[in-house]
Amino acid sequence: MGIERMKRLEEQIRRCGEVRDGQVLKVDCFLNHQIDVLFMEEMAKEFHRLFEETHPTKVLTIEASGIPIAVLTAQTFGIPLVFAKKTESLNLDQETYVAEVYSYTRQKPYHIKVSKKYLNPQDRVLIIDDFLARGSASSGLMNLVSQSGATLSGVGVVIEKSFQSGGAELRQAGVNLHSLAMVASMSPETGVVFAPNPDDESKN
Amino acid sequence: MGIERMKRLEEQIRRCGEVRDGQVLKVDCFLNHQIDVLFMEEMAKEFHRLFEETHPTKVLTIEASGIPIAVLTAQTFGIPLVFAKKTESLNLDQETYVAEVYSYTRQKPYHIKVSKKYLNPQDRVLIIDDFLARGSASSGLMNLVSQSGATLSGVGVVIEKSFQSGGAELRQAGVNLHSLAMVASMSPETGVVFAPNPDDESKN
Repeated sequence: MGIERMKRLEEQIRRCGEVRDGQVLKVDCFLNHQIDVLFMEEMAKEFHRLFEETHPTKVLTIEASGIPIAVLTAQTFGIPLVFAKKTESLNLDQETYVAEVYSYTRQKPYHIKVSKKYLNPQDRVLIIDDFLARGSASSGLMNLVSQSGATLSGVGVVIEKSFQSGGAELRQAGVNLHSLAMVASMSPETGVVFAPNPDDESKN
Repeated sequence: MGIERMKRLEEQIRRCGEVRDGQVLKVDCFLNHQIDVLFMEEMAKEFHRLFEETHPTKVLTIEASGIPIAVLTAQTFGIPLVFAKKTESLNLDQETYVAEVYSYTRQKPYHIKVSKKYLNPQDRVLIIDDFLARGSASSGLMNLVSQSGATLSGVGVVIEKSFQSGGAELRQAGVNLHSLAMVASMSPETGVVFAPNPDDESKN
């Protein structure tokens, strides 16, 4: 079941992913602009299967393109979603947790914030995002979870660029990370090449 | 059924909506920051009931806070969601439809864009958003639909500020508009006062 879903995801990425210069992968046809909601539901069920045993109480993501898969994942667990907001200004008030994220696309840092009301020490937080590359966004979200005193239940991403360092670093740090597709390499000429997924073994 | 859902929505808005200066209503506890996914599902079912007869083929919204309710509404219909992206730069290329939206909060215009791939003349487009006030965002989205040659199936918003002009203008223009809650007035002192919903009659 797990493997079948992953294979369909890889097919979809091959079919309509566009590799741009600067190691940018655009998957606008079902993930980042148009959302194939029924297909995303299948991905959300896969996250449910992978993280069920961690009993998350909240899903956390960043606006905007992480929101669809995060909503559908929260739905499978019947728990709320919190999305961190991007903010240019570093307005350190008493009401929000703030972390810095570096945007490699824009080559500058930005801040993300979550109201203190919506993350608390009793929470077990499942971070869900569309992409994992160098891991700056995931680290920022984990920083927010840490500030709140909540427990990190895990990190789930739809597409990991495993030729970049983010995933390896998180696994090394002991984070419960699952990626639904692992891109080993990509270029405008050769397209996308997938790596074997470390989750595959447990699915036979 | 419809009325019951609306009443629960009004209660939720009263319970945790925060009225800020400048006619800003923050509903962070279930709509704009933390998403009560199970409650939003109920709202999505209500949109399904209200727009079922228009047979939409796509849901359209704007990033970011319109996305959760739009995803769940698209799910009830089993159709894709497209979210328009906000952009500072007016990069008029051949591949996107672009429209201008005025932000009253920031007191400046911005642009929204949708790839031409994801809206086409065969589509019947249901616009879903979290708020309707002066109607600038809805008009921008309707403009994108119009450029694409698609048919507008309707506009559904969770909260309409009926003391502002957007809703009245859309109805006058013959748009098939449904709002799940109608705010007649609000202030930091008195809180939120609701208007009778024009949809209520059909629900008795």
